[in-house]
Amino acid sequence: MSNKVFILDSTLRDGAQGQGISFSVEDKLKIVKALDDLGIDYVEAGNPGSNPKDMDFFRRAQGLRLKKTKLVAFGSTRRIGVTVEEDKNLQDLLEAKTEVVTIFGKSSDFHVTEILKTTLDENLKLIKESIEYLKKHQKEVIFDGEHFFDGYKSNKQYSIETLKTAKDAGADVIVLCDTNGGTTPKEIFDIVTEVKEILGDNIGIHCHNDIGVAVANSIIGVEAGANHIQGTFLGIGERCGNANLSTIIPTLMLKMDKDVIEKELLSSLKSTAMMLSEISNIQLKDDTPYIGSAAFAHKGGMHIDAVVKEPKSYEHINPEVVGNSRRILVSEVSGKSTILKEVQKLFPNFSKDSKEVQLIIDKLKELEHQGYQFEGAEGTIELVIRKIIGKYKPFFQLNNFKVIGEHPSSKANFTSTAVINVNVDGRDEMTAAEGDGPVNALDKALRKALEVFYPQLKYIRLVDYKVRVLDEGTATEASVRVLIESSDGSENWTTVGVSRDIIEASWIALVDSIEYKLIKDIERNVRTYF
Amino acid sequence: MSNKVFILDSTLRDGAQGQGISFSVEDKLKIVKALDDLGIDYVEAGNPGSNPKDMDFFRRAQGLRLKKTKLVAFGSTRRIGVTVEEDKNLQDLLEAKTEVVTIFGKSSDFHVTEILKTTLDENLKLIKESIEYLKKHQKEVIFDGEHFFDGYKSNKQYSIETLKTAKDAGADVIVLCDTNGGTTPKEIFDIVTEVKEILGDNIGIHCHNDIGVAVANSIIGVEAGANHIQGTFLGIGERCGNANLSTIIPTLMLKMDKDVIEKELLSSLKSTAMMLSEISNIQLKDDTPYIGSAAFAHKGGMHIDAVVKEPKSYEHINPEVVGNSRRILVSEVSGKSTILKEVQKLFPNFSKDSKEVQLIIDKLKELEHQGYQFEGAEGTIELVIRKIIGKYKPFFQLNNFKVIGEHPSSKANFTSTAVINVNVDGRDEMTAAEGDGPVNALDKALRKALEVFYPQLKYIRLVDYKVRVLDEGTATEASVRVLIESSDGSENWTTVGVSRDIIEASWIALVDSIEYKLIKDIERNVRTYF
Repeated sequence: MSNKVFILDSTLRDGAQGQGISFSVEDKLKIVKALDDLGIDYVEAGNPGSNPKDMDFFRRAQGLRLKKTKLVAFGSTRRIGVTVEEDKNLQDLLEAKTEVVTIFGKSSDFHVTEILKTTLDENLKLIKESIEYLKKHQKEVIFDGEHFFDGYKSNKQYSIETLKTAKDAGADVIVLCDTNGGTTPKEIFDIVTEVKEILGDNIGIHCHNDIGVAVANSIIGVEAGANHIQGTFLGIGERCGNANLSTIIPTLMLKMDKDVIEKELLSSLKSTAMMLSEISNIQLKDDTPYIGSAAFAHKGGMHIDAVVKEPKSYEHINPEVVGNSRRILVSEVSGKSTILKEVQKLFPNFSKDSKEVQLIIDKLKELEHQGYQFEGAEGTIELVIRKIIGKYKPFFQLNNFKVIGEHPSSKANFTSTAVINVNVDGRDEMTAAEGDGPVNALDKALRKALEVFYPQLKYIRLVDYKVRVLDEGTATEASVRVLIESSDGSENWTTVGVSRDIIEASWIALVDSIEYKLIKDIERNVRTYF
Repeated sequence: MSNKVFILDSTLRDGAQGQGISFSVEDKLKIVKALDDLGIDYVEAGNPGSNPKDMDFFRRAQGLRLKKTKLVAFGSTRRIGVTVEEDKNLQDLLEAKTEVVTIFGKSSDFHVTEILKTTLDENLKLIKESIEYLKKHQKEVIFDGEHFFDGYKSNKQYSIETLKTAKDAGADVIVLCDTNGGTTPKEIFDIVTEVKEILGDNIGIHCHNDIGVAVANSIIGVEAGANHIQGTFLGIGERCGNANLSTIIPTLMLKMDKDVIEKELLSSLKSTAMMLSEISNIQLKDDTPYIGSAAFAHKGGMHIDAVVKEPKSYEHINPEVVGNSRRILVSEVSGKSTILKEVQKLFPNFSKDSKEVQLIIDKLKELEHQGYQFEGAEGTIELVIRKIIGKYKPFFQLNNFKVIGEHPSSKANFTSTAVINVNVDGRDEMTAAEGDGPVNALDKALRKALEVFYPQLKYIRLVDYKVRVLDEGTATEASVRVLIESSDGSENWTTVGVSRDIIEASWIALVDSIEYKLIKDIERNVRTYF
């Protein structure tokens, strides 16, 4: 038997049911191309019968030249009381002109009698006639047995009968769907094993994540004999989402020795996920398996020491295989070797015996004691290192700033005004800006003043702003830690500030963010800086 | 054999290794209480030997009166070359004075020879002597076999030998750890089944989520015979996190008929998760199984129709069982009974048909839509109810306030000045105060002005102040939610404010806090109020 597992990505169909998800036709075309570049076997791209936008997509998709991916149109078995030729949904499926169609039918007696409101026999007829009709039109047909697992638990014989009917009618793949996502891995294993004995090859599995086991159910389905997995690349989908293919694909290939996509393409896994999340307008979570920014991040001191000795001690794979990289988080529990690595990234000549390295460690510890936290705050760490090593000069001096807030405010949108006075190379620049709250006003005023000298700051934007109150027991007099993530469109960086005053904490992080950006620009353009 | 599965929550120990996670001692005490309220069997709260903050916690925790939870201190087997009596880590474990300790040892030959750099025999000795020593001190001992599953794959016999050694030395529970999180559910099932045959009862499982199957591995471990699961309540932890207990607990109880916590307490699952995510300063993801806001949200038109006919058509459980609710339309249709309960606490005569109850629900939903969150914010809920029912009169009017911040500041400790003008019963009072940051100055000025009329406000202090940035993608222009906890020495109460301006959000919460206090005082002293 072949080692191949086929992947069907339904980001554009089932994924589009997810909360807050909406794709334009342009978005859909981009996603199809990205998935084709990765070598995904099938992309289920919409339901032409239920959605005119999807039909528009399929028309335009006919011009795509795909290398590997087969486009799939999705629809249901014919309606009750019409012939297949009269059924609009089936006609729309043909009109989508895809090589492959997925057709779903009810594989649960409860859904036939209570939701579809028909007889069990009539449902079998719907399945049989719809599939035969599509096969007559030379389609590759994937049959999705909706609610199969729930059906199996209430009327096993009937649920299996629906699958057999589909297979006998000519369906190429029979997919067992855990539509409500409530089935456990052990149940999946046992049931798929049994179905495989009855139906033979070309069984697929389609799982939802309502009890947090969609990925596990998909791969254990393969261990039980399935060779086709349906999911969405980032796991998006209705309720708790669909099975996450970006997790399943590397697990099948690296842990279970299956053929899925080309081995060399696996290193594009992370960049494909970044692109899809950008298009879908969702944040790729840090803790996403394989591809998240924290997936190979180490914090515990003991773990860091071990990973430095032997990466495999706390890493289940080499992160580069999936296009990710190791990150050592500088935290209160991390040791000298971690910080030395950070220094050597910038200045390879320093060794662990350099007195500057000890000074940097002392400084970071002192800042941590004040409430700083350096995990992910590479911008601030680099500035601390540069200041101690002497590879830093300030880009401006603050003369002073004032922030004034007023309630009720006379302005509709702005409650705060910031006035700032900075000095660059002996020249003072004073300006002011209004904003929604004191930090927003200050951010605007500072950048406005500095853009006079550094026009490239126009392209910086703050993408994330996090506030954490420390020593909360002392309430409004407590220290505040502010984390700012900035972007210039091609790179993101994070800086951190701590103070008892939220405005000052934000100021510290803002200044570091701007200085970091200016240093990077100089490094790129003028190699002789410092 | 008993149907009981024991749960060990390691949010405060393994969870604290997660990126961006940092707990104060106060945070830790609150989390222990919340988990105790839910009836979690064990809470592993820190590593006293590696972290002075953790030792401080264990000292303070001795004053906690827990109903159900056993506190657990965590540490490693003794170091090489010292006796158990000389080993500082073991001494610290004893000094933590918990009834239970977890001790971890190496269960993988690779880790013994390559990381620990000792012999396989010496490692067995470390395990044996450390456990015997702790048992001599009457501890309940949980042995974590670190890297057990990876070890099993490279040298099965030795890995099992480490477990047998621990059991023979008297360990009460033997925990199989998938430390690197790379083991598949099928492997877990087969290996746990085998170990169970060798070791018998009281086997635990500790999983990480590096291939996205930590929840599945934990529950399939139980199907193979384990009766103790280690994880973290929200799944936080190093890299991709630990097994998510908020998913595992309801699955064990609702899908696998296991005894875990009291059945009635399961409806506190969501509120406990909300509280923990607030304290941890992380966002509870919408698509979190069981408890996320999208876990029972229906978007597809066909699905909505079916769910309206028959909820179980697209819901694997009744959402109320875990304290969650179905969401169908943009406006929620649930939660009425909860809100009715809040109303009846104050005004027992109102019924679910009272039009005021519907108005209160509408108002709370509108506020939630703006970013308010009412879990724990009893003060604000009570004021919303009173305002709608007409049992409220304002205690003062704000004429205006101004907050001025200045950097560098001419004052040593104060960077902000607040000027306020309030009116009470026709009399204006204007005053000013300086503070460390704008919110601190404003808090002082407001109370200074109102103390002229309400002297009892002298005894209020703010004990907690939390800031949460909403819609973080839009950075400093995002909305901000401020939660304030106040105390008058005998009672604590929490209020909440949301605005795009952090000063305004703080103001809203401050005003609610003061009004709540004044209402309670009147209720206590003058029963005829209102």
